[in-house]
Parts: sequence; C-alpha cells; structure tokens
Amino acid sequence: MAGATSASRNMETLEALESRVRAYSRSFPAIFSRACGSIMLTEDGRKVVDFLCGAGTLNYGHNNHRLKAAIADYLASDAVIHGLDMATPAKLEFMETFNSLILRRRDLQYRFQFTGPTGANAIEAAIKLARKVTGRQNIISFTNGYHGMSLGAIAASGNRYYRTASGVSLSGVTFMPYDGYLGPDVDAAEYLQKLLGDESSGLDRPAAILLETVQGEGGINVARKEWLQSIQTIATNAGALFIVDDIQMGCGRTGEFFSFEFADLSPDIVVLSKSLSGYGLPLSMLLIKEECDAWQPGEHTGTFRGNNLALVSATAALDLYWRDDIFSQGVQRTGEVMRHRLEAIATRYGNRFSVRGRGMALGFDCEMSELAATTACKAFEKGLIVERCGPVDQVIKFLPALTIDSETLNDGLEIFEHSLDEALKQTRPS
Amino acid sequence: MAGATSASRNMETLEALESRVRAYSRSFPAIFSRACGSIMLTEDGRKVVDFLCGAGTLNYGHNNHRLKAAIADYLASDAVIHGLDMATPAKLEFMETFNSLILRRRDLQYRFQFTGPTGANAIEAAIKLARKVTGRQNIISFTNGYHGMSLGAIAASGNRYYRTASGVSLSGVTFMPYDGYLGPDVDAAEYLQKLLGDESSGLDRPAAILLETVQGEGGINVARKEWLQSIQTIATNAGALFIVDDIQMGCGRTGEFFSFEFADLSPDIVVLSKSLSGYGLPLSMLLIKEECDAWQPGEHTGTFRGNNLALVSATAALDLYWRDDIFSQGVQRTGEVMRHRLEAIATRYGNRFSVRGRGMALGFDCEMSELAATTACKAFEKGLIVERCGPVDQVIKFLPALTIDSETLNDGLEIFEHSLDEALKQTRPS
Amino acid sequence: MAGATSASRNMETLEALESRVRAYSRSFPAIFSRACGSIMLTEDGRKVVDFLCGAGTLNYGHNNHRLKAAIADYLASDAVIHGLDMATPAKLEFMETFNSLILRRRDLQYRFQFTGPTGANAIEAAIKLARKVTGRQNIISFTNGYHGMSLGAIAASGNRYYRTASGVSLSGVTFMPYDGYLGPDVDAAEYLQKLLGDESSGLDRPAAILLETVQGEGGINVARKEWLQSIQTIATNAGALFIVDDIQMGCGRTGEFFSFEFADLSPDIVVLSKSLSGYGLPLSMLLIKEECDAWQPGEHTGTFRGNNLALVSATAALDLYWRDDIFSQGVQRTGEVMRHRLEAIATRYGNRFSVRGRGMALGFDCEMSELAATTACKAFEKGLIVERCGPVDQVIKFLPALTIDSETLNDGLEIFEHSLDEALKQTRPS
Amino acid sequence: MAGATSASRNMETLEALESRVRAYSRSFPAIFSRACGSIMLTEDGRKVVDFLCGAGTLNYGHNNHRLKAAIADYLASDAVIHGLDMATPAKLEFMETFNSLILRRRDLQYRFQFTGPTGANAIEAAIKLARKVTGRQNIISFTNGYHGMSLGAIAASGNRYYRTASGVSLSGVTFMPYDGYLGPDVDAAEYLQKLLGDESSGLDRPAAILLETVQGEGGINVARKEWLQSIQTIATNAGALFIVDDIQMGCGRTGEFFSFEFADLSPDIVVLSKSLSGYGLPLSMLLIKEECDAWQPGEHTGTFRGNNLALVSATAALDLYWRDDIFSQGVQRTGEVMRHRLEAIATRYGNRFSVRGRGMALGFDCEMSELAATTACKAFEKGLIVERCGPVDQVIKFLPALTIDSETLNDGLEIFEHSLDEALKQTRPS
Repeated sequence: MAGATSASRNMETLEALESRVRAYSRSFPAIFSRACGSIMLTEDGRKVVDFLCGAGTLNYGHNNHRLKAAIADYLASDAVIHGLDMATPAKLEFMETFNSLILRRRDLQYRFQFTGPTGANAIEAAIKLARKVTGRQNIISFTNGYHGMSLGAIAASGNRYYRTASGVSLSGVTFMPYDGYLGPDVDAAEYLQKLLGDESSGLDRPAAILLETVQGEGGINVARKEWLQSIQTIATNAGALFIVDDIQMGCGRTGEFFSFEFADLSPDIVVLSKSLSGYGLPLSMLLIKEECDAWQPGEHTGTFRGNNLALVSATAALDLYWRDDIFSQGVQRTGEVMRHRLEAIATRYGNRFSVRGRGMALGFDCEMSELAATTACKAFEKGLIVERCGPVDQVIKFLPALTIDSETLNDGLEIFEHSLDEALKQTRPS
Repeated sequence: MAGATSASRNMETLEALESRVRAYSRSFPAIFSRACGSIMLTEDGRKVVDFLCGAGTLNYGHNNHRLKAAIADYLASDAVIHGLDMATPAKLEFMETFNSLILRRRDLQYRFQFTGPTGANAIEAAIKLARKVTGRQNIISFTNGYHGMSLGAIAASGNRYYRTASGVSLSGVTFMPYDGYLGPDVDAAEYLQKLLGDESSGLDRPAAILLETVQGEGGINVARKEWLQSIQTIATNAGALFIVDDIQMGCGRTGEFFSFEFADLSPDIVVLSKSLSGYGLPLSMLLIKEECDAWQPGEHTGTFRGNNLALVSATAALDLYWRDDIFSQGVQRTGEVMRHRLEAIATRYGNRFSVRGRGMALGFDCEMSELAATTACKAFEKGLIVERCGPVDQVIKFLPALTIDSETLNDGLEIFEHSLDEALKQTRPS
Repeated sequence: MAGATSASRNMETLEALESRVRAYSRSFPAIFSRACGSIMLTEDGRKVVDFLCGAGTLNYGHNNHRLKAAIADYLASDAVIHGLDMATPAKLEFMETFNSLILRRRDLQYRFQFTGPTGANAIEAAIKLARKVTGRQNIISFTNGYHGMSLGAIAASGNRYYRTASGVSLSGVTFMPYDGYLGPDVDAAEYLQKLLGDESSGLDRPAAILLETVQGEGGINVARKEWLQSIQTIATNAGALFIVDDIQMGCGRTGEFFSFEFADLSPDIVVLSKSLSGYGLPLSMLLIKEECDAWQPGEHTGTFRGNNLALVSATAALDLYWRDDIFSQGVQRTGEVMRHRLEAIATRYGNRFSVRGRGMALGFDCEMSELAATTACKAFEKGLIVERCGPVDQVIKFLPALTIDSETLNDGLEIFEHSLDEALKQTRPS
Repeated sequence: MAGATSASRNMETLEALESRVRAYSRSFPAIFSRACGSIMLTEDGRKVVDFLCGAGTLNYGHNNHRLKAAIADYLASDAVIHGLDMATPAKLEFMETFNSLILRRRDLQYRFQFTGPTGANAIEAAIKLARKVTGRQNIISFTNGYHGMSLGAIAASGNRYYRTASGVSLSGVTFMPYDGYLGPDVDAAEYLQKLLGDESSGLDRPAAILLETVQGEGGINVARKEWLQSIQTIATNAGALFIVDDIQMGCGRTGEFFSFEFADLSPDIVVLSKSLSGYGLPLSMLLIKEECDAWQPGEHTGTFRGNNLALVSATAALDLYWRDDIFSQGVQRTGEVMRHRLEAIATRYGNRFSVRGRGMALGFDCEMSELAATTACKAFEKGLIVERCGPVDQVIKFLPALTIDSETLNDGLEIFEHSLDEALKQTRPS
C-alpha cells in the first residue's frame, strides 16, 4: 500500500526531473528496486519476468551471483578501477582469457581495442578504422540495420525517427537491401554486386560493409549463411573491410559465442558490447585483424575505455560459461524450445503471424503495430517485460537471459500468449 | 625481482594483444595493480603519485574509501545494476540529491538526461538537441577546444591529429578564436559578434555555442569572466543555445562544482561526465533547461545510460563533499598553493615558462614540446604521473585529486621540479 | 597538303596550351573549321558526318541557316546582348512563344526560370528549389543517371570517374535502381516504394525524385511508361517534387518536344538546356509549376542567365519546327528507320548486340568496351563522328540531327556498319 | 505613349511567366530594347547610363562595334559554333592570342581550361582541381567573398541569403577574415598563419586558398598588396593552391588585365569569366600552372565549354585593347577621375560616407542600406543604372564600361550625386 503510493510519488519526481527523452520508464512504468536472474522486483512488490534483459545486455541474467563475487573482490582489493588505458592485471587477464577461450578455440586471431564503453563508440571506432585503412569514405550498411546514436553510428542506422532527430543530413553511408528484403526470388547480394561492378551505379567504392547477422532492433531479421558468405566475399573483392556488429547478437545470444560462427565468417573487425561484461557494466571493444590494425597511438581515445571493473566480470563470465560447449548447447536447446512454443502460438492463429530468429533471439511478428503494442502492454500488467522492434514496432522481441530456467521461461511465454489473446480480442472488431 | 620479470612479460603480452591505438600504456609503461587516493602501485612494487587522475575522472582520488562502501552495499543488495533507462531508486535518489545539493543551492533549474556513459556521447546528445531546438545545423566551437572522439564530437574538436583520423571531411561546426587567442589587444568575442552580425561573413546562424571555461586538452587555457559572459549574451542574442562542456572542469575541479559559477553563467545545457560518478565508473549526463527539453521519447537512446552503480557512487560523493562549501574552499586553497609553487618554479627560469589555470586545473607551459616530453618522462621514472596537453603537447598538465594531502602534493611537485631541471640540462646545448 | 601539316602543328599547339582535361579533341583529333547541318569539315579538308551533334545540343543541325538569320539580325540591330536578367523583348518573346507553341498546346502550365547557361547550373537550381519547397535534403536519383559536373549535380550522377574527381564525399543524394536495373522480373519502382514506406530502411524522406526518361550518358537506357508513371505517383505520395531532366532528351530528341509526353507525365520541374537555343548557344532553364515557385528574388542568380542571343535563336527554332506536329512526326519516322537499320545490323551478328532507344536517341550495345572503342575510332577515320556511353563506354550512341536528310543518315549508318565489321575482325581471336 | 502602355503590359507578362526568382527586372523595371556602349534604351524610349555593365561583364561596353564585326563574320562563315571541346581554329587563335598578348608580356605561364560558361562552373573546376592535386578537402575562403551559386561555389561564398537558399549544410570551406576585417590594427593574415600553424586550431589543412583581390559583391573591399603577398606565401607554405577569382575584377577592371598584377602575385589558378568574351557572351576559363594540371581527360566536362562565338569576340577584344598599355593606362586615369569625384561627393557630407576601390571598380559606402536603396532607385528614375553591394547592400557599386567617354561618365556621376542628395533629404528626419 504505502509502497504503491510512494512509487507513484516517485514516478512523478522522475517526470519532473528527467528529460522528456526517457523511454523505458514510459513502457514499463514502475520503480525497479531489485533484480536477480530473470526476475525484476518493483518497489511496490511485484515480480516481473524479464524477456528484454537490458536489450541483450544481460545474457547471464541480472546480478548473476557467480559473477558478483569477482566484482566485489576486485572492488575490495583496491585494484585499479579507473586508469584510462593504462595496463592493469585485469585487462591483461581479460585479453588472455578471451584469447584462449574464445579466439584460439575457434581458430581466430584478433587484436583488442577497448573503445569508449558504448556500442556506438565502438561502431564509430570501427568505421573510422575502415576509412583509415582503405582511404575511402563510403560505408555500406543495410535496410533495418541499427548501430547506435552518435553521428557516425546513426548515419549507418536505418531508423528514420532517430535519423531525423540528428538534425543534419547524414552522409558517408549507403544502404543496401538486407537478406530477403527484395523478396524470396531476388538475391540482395547480387544487387550489391551489380552496383559495385557498375562504374555508373552511383555507389562509391566502400571502406567497409557493416552488418548484423540477425537484425535486433530492425525486427529480428535473420540473414542466411549463403548471403552472409556472399557479402563477405563481395567486401573482400571490393577492397572493403567486412565488419560484423555483434553488439546485441554476440556473447552467446544466437547459440554460439559469435553470431557469425555458423556461417564460417572471418570478419576483419568484430564489434562487441552489451553482454560483454556479463554483469550489465559498460564495456565495448573491437576485435581487429592484425593487418587492419592501422591505428596510430591514441587516434581513437576516450576516458572510460577498458573499464576495469567490467573487464573483471567479463573474464569471470568467460571462465564460467565458455570453457566448453555445454552452455552454448544449452542456449541452442532453449532457443528451440522457445521457437516451437512461439510457432505453436502463431499457428493457432492461422497464417496471421510469423516467428523469426536464431538461438535465443526470437521475434513474433504481429504484423500490426497496435496489436504488438497492446500485447506488450498487457504482458507488463501480467508480469512480463517484452519489447517491440521492427520498422513500425510490430514485432515482439524475445531476448530472455541465456541462463533462464524452464519454469520461468514457461511462465513468461504463457503470459505472452494470454496477453496476445486478450489484445486480439480487444483490437478485433465486434 | 620476480615481479619485474613478470611485468615485462606482461607488457609484451599487452603489445601482442592490444591494438596499436593504445596510448597511456606507452607513456606510463607499467602494470598498475593497486591504487588509493593519489597513489598508484605498479605490479613490481613502485609507488607513483598521480597528477593525471584519469584525465580528471578521479577528483576524489582513486578508490575513495568513503564512496566504496556505497558501491559494495548496492552490489550486495541485488539492487538493479542494469535496467536500460527504467526507473530505479538509485536514479531517483541521485536526481533528488543533485537537485537539492547542487542545483537549488545555486538557484539553478535543470532537467537530467542520462546519455551513453562517455563524454562524447553526452556532447553528441547536446549538439543534437541544440539542432533540434533551433532547426539550425551550425555549431560554434573554439580553437583548441576538445569535446570527444565520435563523429559529431570530433567535428567540434580542434585537434588535427584526431580530426584527420576520422577519415572524412568534418562538417557542421565553425571554429572561433577562444579568449586570448587573438592576443591581448583583440577581443575575440567582438570578432564573433561581428561575424554573426555580418550577413556576408560566411558564418551560418548557429544552433549552439559550445565551450569549455578552461580548455584542458587544449593546453589549460583559461577564459576570463567577461569573455564568457559576452559569449553567453552573444549566443542568446543569436538565438543559439549556450552549452558548457564541464566534462573535465566540472565536479569541483576549478574550485566550485561547476566551472562557470565564478562567471555567473546560466548555460542552456551543461555537459557532465568524468568525475561525476566520483569513483571512476562510466557515467555522463546533460543538464537541460526545461524550455530546451524538446526531445521526443527515446530520440537519443543507449544501452548503458544511467549506469546505476555509478549513480550510487555519484550520490555518495555529493553527500560527502557538496553539503556545504568546506570542500570547495579547500580546493581553492590547495589550488593557490599549487599555483604559487609552480609560479615559483617558472620564475626561477626567468620568463621562459608560464603557469595557467583555475582551481586545481593547472598548466605549466614549457614552450617546447621536447622539453615537456622529457620532463614528463623523467617524472614518471621518479614516481610521478603527469600528462602533457596543448597544440604540440608543450604544456605539463596538473590535475591532482582534489582530496590530495599536502605531503603527497608536495612530493609530486618536487618530483616535477627535479624532472624539469634534469630535462633542461639534457636538452640544453652544452 | 599544307592543310595537313598546319593541322598537325595546330594539334601540337593545342596540346601545349590546353589543359590535360581536354577530351573530345582526343577522340576526334582534327581541327574542325566549318560545319553545316549534319556535316563537319576539318581544316585539312575532310567531310565528316556528325552523329554526336554536340552531345544532343544540335537537334536542328550545325549552323541551321533558317535560324542564323534571326541571330544575325538581332546582332546587327544592337538589341541587348547582355543585361543580366533585366527584361528584354527577346526574353518576353521567347516566353510567350514557348508558352503558346509548347505549353498551351500540351495543356501544361509552367513558369520560366533562366539559370546559368549550363545544364549543371539548371540542375543545381532545381535541386535547390526542391529542398527549399520541401524543407528536406535528400534527392533520389537513379543508377546510371547523369546530371552534370558541379558539386550539387555530380552528387546526383552515377559515374564513378566523375564522382571520384570531385575529391570530396558527395552527400544529399540516394541512388535507386532505374527501370530494368534489377532485371526483367523485379519492379524497381516497387523497391523504391518499399524503402519509402519502411520507417527503418535508411532512406531519408526525399525533397525530390530526379530522372531522365531515357538515360543518355548512362547508356541509352529507356524507361517504360508504366515505370515513369509509378515514380511520379511515388514522388507525389512522398511529398517530393518530381523533376525530369530533359537536358539531352528534350527539344524533340525522342520524337516529341518533351521526352515525357508519351507517358502523360506532369513533372513539378522540367530542366532544359542543350538544344534549347537551337543553334548551340549556351542557354538553360527550368519550367516550374506555379505552386512550386517558392523562390525569393535573386536566390539563385548568375551572370549569363537568359542569354539574349540564345533566346532569339530559341524562339526562331520554336517558330520553325513546333508550330504543328509535322516535324515531330518526321523525327519519329526517321527514328524508326534508324532503329530498323541498327537492329538489322545487330541481327546479322546473332544475339551478341542489342539496340535501345526512343525517337532519334539510339544506342547500339557492343557489350565490350574495346569493341565499341575500336568501332568508334574506325568510324572517325572513315568519316563519322559517334560517341560511346554506358558504364564502361560499351554502347555506341546515335544522336544525329533531327533534321538530317536520308542520304546523309544512310552514309553515316553505312560507315558505322563497316567500322563495326572491321573492328570485329580486328578484335576477334584469329 | 503606345510604347509606355505596351511596356507595362509587357512587365505584366513577365511577372506572369517568369519565376519569382527574377531580380534585376525588379530593381530596373523596364524593358530594355537596345544598348550601345554605356547607354541602354528602354522600349518606351528612355536613355539610361549603365554603371552596372552586366555586373562587370561589359568592360568594353554594350555591343562594342569594334568587336561586333568579328562575331558577325564568324557567324556568316559557317565556322563551328558548337563542337563541345573539339579543336577549332577559333579556340586555337584565342589561346595563342591570349598567350602572346597577356601571358608572355607578363612573364606568366599557364594552361587553359575551358569550363562550363559560368563563373560558378569555373570556380567548381578550380576547387575540384585543388582537391585533386592536394588530396585535401578544405578550401579557405574569406568573409564577404562571393564565388557563385552552384553547391561547391556557394559553399565558398559568404552571403547568408544565398547560403540559406541552398537548403543544405554547406561544407568543405573555412572562412577567414579578409584584409582589414579585424580592424586596422590586426593583421588578418597573421591570424590565418596562426591557425594553420596551431595543431589544435580546428582549421583543417587546406587544399586551396581562394580569394578576390577586390571583393565586388562583398562591398568593394580592397585588399592591400602586402596582405595578398602574405596570403600567397601562406598558401605555398601550407602546401595549398593559391587561387585568384578574377571573374569580376579581371579583364582590365582594376586597371591592369589581371587584378593581381599590382601585387606581383603568381596564382596557381586564375579564374576568368564575365568580361572575358568582351561582348557579354557566356565564356569561362581557368588558367592553370602546368604543375597543377593534374586532370585526367574529361574529368571536368560540360556541353558549352569553349563557346566558339565567345572565343572569337574574346580574341578580337584582346587584339583591340591589350596589344599595348594604352588602354590599361586610360582605365587607370578614368578610375582616378571617378574616385576624386566620388570622394568629393563624400567629403561634402563630412565623414558619413567613404569611397573604396581600385581602377574602375569603385564603391560609395552609404553606411545605411535604406539610403543606398533610395539613392539607387532615384538614380534609375533619373537615368542611371547602379547596383548595390556589401553585407546589407549599403554600398553603391560603380562598374562603368572601361571604354566610357568622359561626358557619359560625368552625366552618370551627376545623376548619382543628385539622387544621393534627394535620398538624404527624404530619409532625413524633418
């Protein structure tokens, strides 16, 4: 009771003090006081299942207790928290662990660049490096792609709402149709190939081709292995760097550590952030092939790059989950379970809805924006956090913690199903 | 012994694994294992006085024990670490504390926008908002200004090395001479006024005027109260937003919480980052006048905005240091002590060197890049971390923790003095 | 004899004095002293049939005697030659004649804007006006489109050779596939429609859609009526201006005065230049729908706009050729004759070659750049001027004077046929 | 009578048919039917003295009879009028004549590039070439500079009215203060030097420095010899091309053929247009130092470059006026006469007004826009065409034909004086 009143007082304070730009506190109007695994608790005592997980930042769940100790110990020890990009044991250990558990086991070789701890900053660095290496300016990005909100990153992102907000004409990027965008009968890679090979197409020679293997914000659009391989080959032949933005789809989300492993890709640059720290702490980095590491010292700098506390939890997460394939296989199994369940729901309604995704990144396409909105809204009332994505926010996005237990997963999916049912009844003409 | 060998092995690992972009690990070639207050410890057992402090990120010193408890408690409690920009008690408490201790006591009224946790991202948001509010595109920035490394921020930064690295023509920003740049007899504000009033000057009507009141990276250039007031008036008259970048100079660095208090300014937007969290954790925000808060929901978004752990330490720091004026007065006193000492050193060498700064942001201008380089290098050998700044890195920058004790301050300054002596002998023709 | 020697001396002078940028004097290495109708004479006495005609500037032939008198009379009368854009009887008479003979007869209503007398300048004005009217910046242009060489025009042109020469990243334009570019089974207009309707496609809302109905420089690519109508509808629905660049294809080249008449289009802006003056004199203009005439006085200005001498010959040409449909019908008949003859040649070689075009703008696609080059070169030796076009200059372009007599046309086509034969023998593996 | 009525009918036709962009037909609302030397005749029989002369296009007067014959002969002979950039005797003769009469006599060596026949197109070519030669993008231009209206040229022009009309953010150009802009005590060249030498000034390394030696549209601002020489030296030292825009001030306007001769400059590129043809026909060209002639064939092309008819009159004008120094000396003498007369007028009114200029390019600064407007308006009523220039159009610009006779000059100046008197009375508070 008292909780409820104080919560509503608190939301008023929030509205009075925080800029109108605030967003998630509108979709999920509650004060969240505690969180553990896949459950968040509101100040007024509600338990909510979290299928959003920091938009893919909490692959190992909220406040993962197996990682917490590492952070607490580091904090207690007075090891260096902030030292710009000075060398620390925490950074060395992270790089060595990542190198041995992730890279060497996959026969990959990369150098590490710690950028400012936002995905956008890492994208900015990747684009900058590609331009530096090639001496070209044009970046090829894809329809419905999303890469961040700073000026260089938003130029490569398709969303018109965000693009318009930048207030300037965004330049230096050309958008190409993503896999499937031109329909099932047209190979979007062939179109790109044709434009590159045509000396009068208007497509300037690219410094890089930048893509997500599954487009998260864009609507859980899944690229096929063959298309991804074609694009990588096209990039190589065009003298362009091939950059995979694995910010949301990396760190196990699609079932393997990198989202591109299933397609045997070998990107020149890989961009990681979000779940990298494993605990929701800000951390971003680039993996760069040695031959592309053309930086001069300090050419891309930043105050919080290589956030030590985050490196510590990141190392702990690698140690816990990526020493062998067990975790990865679990994610794939759980992904299948989710997919079947969502497909069953879709089937119940005939051909109206479709399910897309890979691993534990799944989308339920409601086709209509309003239906998706009502469903998500009802879901939150019933105790489930799900977000929408896609061009008109018509897709319900499922990004549960990779560590979720079956019962909680079930609970969440059931809430979703009921919410959809109710939403359909409500939006259906009488 | 063993430590030393392992350290050198470790530096080799670092070189093999980390991108060539790494910078501070070159200037300060050591593995830093522990840090407390103004002292850092290297893995091989050396104690080093830190006058760089995370380039102004550690105003309250490394691992400030009075703040550590707040972080550890929060961590232990399983309160929300990461929840995108959902409402949390940590965020509410921070805003309320900042509002009452900082804003109300100074008769200021602002709304809070938590941006991606880098200074650059906050600058990007400020520029974007100014363009949105005014419908104009041109941002006026100043010679030797520095605002960050993403595409929008670097366009507003003067440094040619960084600008060139971006690989594209940077647009949307016009640089004006900073206070004093045209020499003592010319008022740089009048020049700006003339260009704005001249319909054929080539200066497009500005969306914002963006400045630092003391330019840190630019060489510790100090703007006078009168000039700052003129610029604010010019901005207002031109229908442009007046934005103060207080990323490095805010949070007490110049003696008051905001660097612009001494000049009675009332910026439309204030940009804070670096020392905001008080503990070196990534956190950035804008303070926005209500009438400028023209954002639509989510127009500038980001995964790690409003980093809760950082908000907790930020609140603790406000509580500890900003309940009254005692801390502020101490900073001003210590600043005076430092300045006198540095001026005495400068005087010893006649008119060759000069000392600049406000509060505890001080610069010792060696005039020659090489001399500054040798001095900083020798200082590190002797146990002092100082960085260089200015157009050709000819200025030694002093940014000690505001909490430094006199003895450590003294030790650091003495090392500097000896290092300068030796450097002069070395660079002096025999 | 003496002629030949002096000509070779003259070419040396040319090479010594004229910039390396010179182009046609390389393809057609001769000094051209006289010209009349479809024949040019070189200084050393050769007669050459001209199928290039100033790249479409001489639709009424060289030095058309029926127009010459008007120019000579005007010149002799001391009427105003240059008066910036002051009102002159010559300008009034031109506008009234164009209005009655061209516009009213086609139920069209436009205002006249005389721009700087280059096609590029008119394109710049059209783009500027579209941005002004809509408040948007993005211009949609098409693959293989060509619109001129100044910065605004080249940004809308596909040719990589020209784009690269500009030395900057060209911005503000998005290229879409032209009719047929995605192959016979994909409707390129649908793709554009999809991108515009998709809020995350990366395609910024357009200020204008700019196209040629037949792409001249791009390789004589012919758009179908249905596609053109779709694009016009798409532009209207998107709130964008629909601009037809009729610089090369207007003034009768495709059989009707405007190249878009066959498709019943109603562009918001029409761009005319090249053959507008009828005598090869520099003249360019925009036709602007009254509701789009949002200019403030003098917002797009220029010294030579509304070149009076050119207006005089333009008026005479309208009077001579466009009082009724006889000329137009003749052009269509001659175009058919040319097409049949070229198709017959193509057929002789099986499926290797193809013929494209409308009216008297025809292209013979040799598929291979080298073959086209050799053919054109041999043609010039034998007395025919033809130019190449298309992405790799693999298309022989036929733009004879619309006034050409059958005999000369025949002579030219015969030379082409023989040249192609010889070129094939030469490039064919023995 | 009848004339007057028909003229007013004609003006209505003009308003109905011509775009609202029309400008000079507003300032000088009359139909101009004949023109000769310095006199224009209106359709209703008024004689008007022309001190505007096509904004400097008619240095040899309207319809100069000594040049007319050359044009008429060429036209009659059926020599090539339009042949793209094919070699013609007319072009060769022009280059040889220019080379011997203008270049060799001044110890200059340049190659000729004929660009599209507008000043703007020539500026576009010059900027493009500078970017190509240097591999840099930034062009340094000056306050109150004017270089044309296409996108590349307007970016280098200071006028806000024109800049805004372009509807996009103009990039790639940095404006520096012109000589005198910072007041008499500050050397604007030193400021530029300082910015170039400062690695953090925000000024990107320039591809070119582009200037007018006297700014025409900008308000008849005259640069001193020393300043011009400093700027040339600065350009050379910075590795930038030095480009003089002599479009309006060249061809004898300042007393010598090139406006920069008095300062012994040796620009890398000179831009000529306006009076180049001598008869008001469209013609533009670049003079390029051989070592800067880095063009590939056809990289900057255009339909009307090297307008043969204009080349013929240009050659005739060189032959007539530039075989010796007599014409040049006459211009200087007449310029002095004008200046004294204008200064006398200014003196009559105390220190209110000032006179500026070189040769026969003079400006009378009325200080107030309204006064200048009223004066110009009254002058036209009384039979004199004068235009205004400067940031707020407060300067009356005098650009009479260089061939004007003393009586007509006198008449014009007298009209100006009376108009100013009346305007002053009218705008003066009673």
